[in-house]
Amino acid sequence: MHRVELESLAEATRLINHGPCVLVSVGDKERDNLFTVAWNMPIRKSPPMVAIESGKSHFSYPLIERTGEFAINVPSADIAHKVLAAGRVSGKDVDDKFSHVGLHRERAAYIKAPLVAETVASLECKVSQMVDFGSSVLIVAQVLRAVVDVDSFEKGTWRFDNGLRLLHHLGGNSFSASDERIDF
Amino acid sequence: MHRVELESLAEATRLINHGPCVLVSVGDKERDNLFTVAWNMPIRKSPPMVAIESGKSHFSYPLIERTGEFAINVPSADIAHKVLAAGRVSGKDVDDKFSHVGLHRERAAYIKAPLVAETVASLECKVSQMVDFGSSVLIVAQVLRAVVDVDSFEKGTWRFDNGLRLLHHLGGNSFSASDERIDF
Repeated sequence: MHRVELESLAEATRLINHGPCVLVSVGDKERDNLFTVAWNMPIRKSPPMVAIESGKSHFSYPLIERTGEFAINVPSADIAHKVLAAGRVSGKDVDDKFSHVGLHRERAAYIKAPLVAETVASLECKVSQMVDFGSSVLIVAQVLRAVVDVDSFEKGTWRFDNGLRLLHHLGGNSFSASDERIDF
Repeated sequence: MHRVELESLAEATRLINHGPCVLVSVGDKERDNLFTVAWNMPIRKSPPMVAIESGKSHFSYPLIERTGEFAINVPSADIAHKVLAAGRVSGKDVDDKFSHVGLHRERAAYIKAPLVAETVASLECKVSQMVDFGSSVLIVAQVLRAVVDVDSFEKGTWRFDNGLRLLHHLGGNSFSASDERIDF
């Protein structure tokens, strides 16, 4: 894994265009956390905007409210078990969810939340709007910076010839992996 | 393909939980259309709510505004070429996009828009909220009814043992297919 800064931020939405199950990381110097989010999507290409869904009762939600920031981290299917683990335990029940699930922090450039070093891409996001749905919130954010694994993403698109398997959440404890490219 | 009504509507969001590229169908008795949407996601499980992104300049957008309805149709990778074709031509440039791309209408139960018969699932949706993003709109809707291919979906989850390949949009003219299940 060799993660580098995505030069063209206009390509940032491509990192989640395929509908991945992602890890959202949040926090500041006092406390951080990460949680699993299947419900996410791009909203706009330029400037790059994304949306994620979060329950208001989630441990991480007030951290997003307080900081106005989060990161979207795109895991490959190789770490599906850690993605599941991150979604199965609340941050209120563990001191450090990163170490609990066996993932490492990487420093972000524009936000205080840590990135997840073992993922094939991370998007640093600044919240621009919260759309209230009662018990849950659609959090809309602008992507300020993205990093991506050079062996997995090239010229604005995922490449599979180095063994990449992208991860999708079917629901419950089940995922699917996509590793076949269809070009026209 | 044998599509039947999904008995438990609480499972409806599972039909798009994996982040598929979908065909959105719209219309009434006067005019209908369909277009390709990579940017979609569930919003809530019960009652089942979903969101799709649409540009305001899209031919189909006023049809959604007028009827307050649309359907999400989930294609398998087998018809990826038709999904691409539906996204490459505007409804204003063809009399009938269904016949233009070689897809067939199926009658919906609760909405006037037709469903796409060749897809492995269709969700009949009623608009509940429009979130304005300038040139585009996030359309939030409640799922009223869903149909699904019995060979592809069982007990609330996609099954791949009958050759199903789910379709994801990487961007541009490229897709990926997921056909591998990961269970924990």
